[in-house]
Amino acid sequence: MTYRAPINDMLLALNHGAGLKAAVEAGHYGDYDPDIAAAVLEEAGRFATDVLAPLNRTGDQSGIKLQDGGVITAPGWPDAYKRWTEAGWNAVSGREDFGGQGLPMAINAACTEIWSASNMAFGLCPLLTLSAIEALDAHGSEALKTVYLGKLISGEWTGTMQLTEPQAGSDVGALRSRAERATDGSYRIFGTKIFITYGDHDMTDNIVHFVLARLPDAPPGTKGISLFLIPKFLVNADGSLGARNDIYPSGVEHKLGIHASPTCVMTMGDKGGAIGYLIGEENRGMQCMFTMMNQARLGVGLEGVGIADRAYQQALAYAQERKQGRAIGTTGNGMDAIILHPDVKRMLMQMRALTAASRTICYATAVALDVSVRAKDPAVRAAAAARGALLTPIAKAFSTDIGNEVASLGVQVHGGMGFIEETGAAQHYRDARITAIYEGTNGIQSIDLVTRKLGVNGGASVWALLDELSEIVKRVETSNDPAFGTTGAKLREALGSLERASKWLLERLASAPNDALAGATPYLRLFGSALGGCKLAEEALAARSLGEQIGDSQRYVTLARFFAENISVQAPALERTVIDSADAVNGADAVLLA
Amino acid sequence: MTYRAPINDMLLALNHGAGLKAAVEAGHYGDYDPDIAAAVLEEAGRFATDVLAPLNRTGDQSGIKLQDGGVITAPGWPDAYKRWTEAGWNAVSGREDFGGQGLPMAINAACTEIWSASNMAFGLCPLLTLSAIEALDAHGSEALKTVYLGKLISGEWTGTMQLTEPQAGSDVGALRSRAERATDGSYRIFGTKIFITYGDHDMTDNIVHFVLARLPDAPPGTKGISLFLIPKFLVNADGSLGARNDIYPSGVEHKLGIHASPTCVMTMGDKGGAIGYLIGEENRGMQCMFTMMNQARLGVGLEGVGIADRAYQQALAYAQERKQGRAIGTTGNGMDAIILHPDVKRMLMQMRALTAASRTICYATAVALDVSVRAKDPAVRAAAAARGALLTPIAKAFSTDIGNEVASLGVQVHGGMGFIEETGAAQHYRDARITAIYEGTNGIQSIDLVTRKLGVNGGASVWALLDELSEIVKRVETSNDPAFGTTGAKLREALGSLERASKWLLERLASAPNDALAGATPYLRLFGSALGGCKLAEEALAARSLGEQIGDSQRYVTLARFFAENISVQAPALERTVIDSADAVNGADAVLLA
Repeated sequence: MTYRAPINDMLLALNHGAGLKAAVEAGHYGDYDPDIAAAVLEEAGRFATDVLAPLNRTGDQSGIKLQDGGVITAPGWPDAYKRWTEAGWNAVSGREDFGGQGLPMAINAACTEIWSASNMAFGLCPLLTLSAIEALDAHGSEALKTVYLGKLISGEWTGTMQLTEPQAGSDVGALRSRAERATDGSYRIFGTKIFITYGDHDMTDNIVHFVLARLPDAPPGTKGISLFLIPKFLVNADGSLGARNDIYPSGVEHKLGIHASPTCVMTMGDKGGAIGYLIGEENRGMQCMFTMMNQARLGVGLEGVGIADRAYQQALAYAQERKQGRAIGTTGNGMDAIILHPDVKRMLMQMRALTAASRTICYATAVALDVSVRAKDPAVRAAAAARGALLTPIAKAFSTDIGNEVASLGVQVHGGMGFIEETGAAQHYRDARITAIYEGTNGIQSIDLVTRKLGVNGGASVWALLDELSEIVKRVETSNDPAFGTTGAKLREALGSLERASKWLLERLASAPNDALAGATPYLRLFGSALGGCKLAEEALAARSLGEQIGDSQRYVTLARFFAENISVQAPALERTVIDSADAVNGADAVLLA
Repeated sequence: MTYRAPINDMLLALNHGAGLKAAVEAGHYGDYDPDIAAAVLEEAGRFATDVLAPLNRTGDQSGIKLQDGGVITAPGWPDAYKRWTEAGWNAVSGREDFGGQGLPMAINAACTEIWSASNMAFGLCPLLTLSAIEALDAHGSEALKTVYLGKLISGEWTGTMQLTEPQAGSDVGALRSRAERATDGSYRIFGTKIFITYGDHDMTDNIVHFVLARLPDAPPGTKGISLFLIPKFLVNADGSLGARNDIYPSGVEHKLGIHASPTCVMTMGDKGGAIGYLIGEENRGMQCMFTMMNQARLGVGLEGVGIADRAYQQALAYAQERKQGRAIGTTGNGMDAIILHPDVKRMLMQMRALTAASRTICYATAVALDVSVRAKDPAVRAAAAARGALLTPIAKAFSTDIGNEVASLGVQVHGGMGFIEETGAAQHYRDARITAIYEGTNGIQSIDLVTRKLGVNGGASVWALLDELSEIVKRVETSNDPAFGTTGAKLREALGSLERASKWLLERLASAPNDALAGATPYLRLFGSALGGCKLAEEALAARSLGEQIGDSQRYVTLARFFAENISVQAPALERTVIDSADAVNGADAVLLA
């Protein structure tokens, strides 16, 4: 079962649910041509179907090897990566003055979904390069940009992000890798990093590592961390590659999923220290990391969307093909395709609705991030930045939870075959699991949402969003379309729950912060359930007004209705959980440690 | 991280939540000594910790091999199985006149949890033997029992259940394996079966296969299926083993989990036909299968409980050991154990509460099945049988959904380490996945609940249970214990939702059955959420009255409260989903097939 990018759904989400069309019309995208998105996504979809999707299963089976101090990727991967970069896919949203195409991040977000869906382990490599580009672009010296930025934007070289150490995971401030100042203005880095994605590979002739380390006189914690650029091969003045730098993969992890993506232990300093160049200022490395965090977290959210869509497509095909039992009301002889059974329909609808909602939330985050740098009006930029910051943890955590739920439903639709590796459904289930963990666990995202996104501005970002969502609900209600069923009522209730839970959390953040932290995870779910429901309703309304252009627009109404009546409907319970269960959570020690 | 059976929790669940104590006091268990449960579980727990738990990871890594026409299990497995049977563990609830110990199924259910928790792939083998025993005991001839029953009860030989064929999974009636009558009264069986658990292995010197096949003149569908006993080695008149029978493993599956459990393709008839003996009557094989289905489904539910508890124990240990970040309100220097962070507390409480609820539901099912055969009063037996039948699909599906959810939370608590196979959390996640699929997918369980358990007697079984649960809620409310928080209100609402959803489904079963089928899965979840909450509250009430005997009884109150405020609280939303979303589900074709 291959993968085909669902271009129509993606465009509807991008233009309408995510607000790209409105932002273009408001002038935030300059002379951007609205037709370009369709053309780019068609082309990306074709590349993904033809080149990347077929390597997904073989990559899982072959995995990677650490041999003679270097990682060897699965057969066909270096060639596919070369073709992918040569076709310009790494440079979609890159700066034009460094060879990029300068397209909106929103379009690249849709492409990221496509790469992740067709081959998550492959798509992960450029995802990290993109973060590296952002850190270098925002904080690197012109000299460093001249040497590295163009190569990273083209994808000729890839980037890594090296934060984690055995004792420093979610708590980055605990890292111990050390940097020493060299006399020539460069640094020598020593230490060991773990969980380094694509820390080494054979797909490019150089790799640019972005490594957090501590100077000898640095203050403790996150205030004493500096960011260094450490090339695998030093670069000569003429741009040619020089000596091998002292940074090596010393181990690779045996993981549950994404077997084709090398997860390396990286050792620096066994041969006198890795030569590194400071990015930004000394001891300000965390700020540099924060710069790229939104983008990276959104990227992981898009992996959730992609893997969900892949799992959905595979389950849908299987359900149309596999025959078991007789469905009520069918007239054929013999067994029916299982898609005719209501319980299977429910699973597939759940998969599709969850996927669609997470897609739009991720795209909306990308549009906000675009506008935050593209709009001319500083007030518009600031509002968009706040929106992007608010949506990022939801895009990351809600979408990756969905990626896992949908991949699990995909296994379930396959019945016994789903548990057999040959079928492929199990690989999506295994691959998806990491997305809820890396780039900040989903628990960390929830805490970020409550403490930094809701908490920092008295809830202003949330109230602004609630106003917009409430307008959508009004339009559902006044549409008087019976196909919406109870959608309007469900979304109205969900927004009420979101508002009340937000207010309660704000109050507790001040008076009893552990109560607020106890409710963070159900709050994020509540947020995603309400937001996703409204966004799908907005798309359904848009589809209705697009008329024939979109085909049968009622299908988007039914999808929005399904989401509202199955997912958004949980909002009141989640509100009660946030508010009522803090006592039980904070009294957990007596239970857990008895 | 090893496994320790949580004896106190198990006994509280068994005696109070599941009602063993009341059933004993009512005389249904004859002269059963209440102290025996504790003694048996202690001993089972010790065996599991010492012998089975250490083989869980090595079994996963080694897997099994098909070699020279036979399956070779992982190193140490044959020896462990031998020790396990020699200690009498296969015979706990077996008939005393065939060498069994005649203990209640409820006690064996608790043991099954222990075997599954310590080593699910191992525990699965005797689980199927137990089903075979039941089919043989209920329907086999005395001659067959004389030869096979004692060996199966002791575990000297294992049993298999062979239903599935490539075209016949959930739809058993589609099977094609054929049986021919031989002149000596035996049969010759031909065909291929797939997904046969422990279809072959090297742990015993004989295997007794229970195989569904069709006679040449059989009617189509499930009414034309007969059940045959097919020994791997024929048995001579003196009980010694004779010729190798014509049933061979022709392939083994490469699976997502339970790698140490051989899942075989079984081929019969390549050498003239496998010699088989009819169990029960010709064409009545499905009745025989139904006999053992309750027991097998309960057994799989207990796998869900077991894997959940194992995942919980491992996550709890990790959370106490792993240090990251500073928790609010702590006073130490440096990083805190992650268990001090409210979001991690929430995950662990969720794991524990879900596990406890599913445990009690499974044990309650076992008590009902016990009483249905042990009580003297036929009316009591009939009521217990109805209760057992009602609870079985919930025990199976709710508990295995929980097994998956809890195993996933277990991965999440470990953060990045959870994705690394070495840690072990990922194995539980992989192993758990099959439990929602085999012995009837959880969708099939939901349909069984709605159509056969709710539907067949106008809801009588449900109303009887609701009355009992309502009494528990009253006792929570009148306890006036503030530690219960909003438990009473949440459970009251949940029961109301369960009642209304049940009535709506009953009405739709008659008027629009596809609407009822569309709501089956959320209905089962609603049922489990309400039932589990009441059962945990019942245990908390019992713990309070047990006083010092149970230690700090408030911990059970907090646990019940957590469940009510986090899980049972979802009942009203699930009710709305059942009722409101049937339209969207039944209109799915327009969405899915656009």
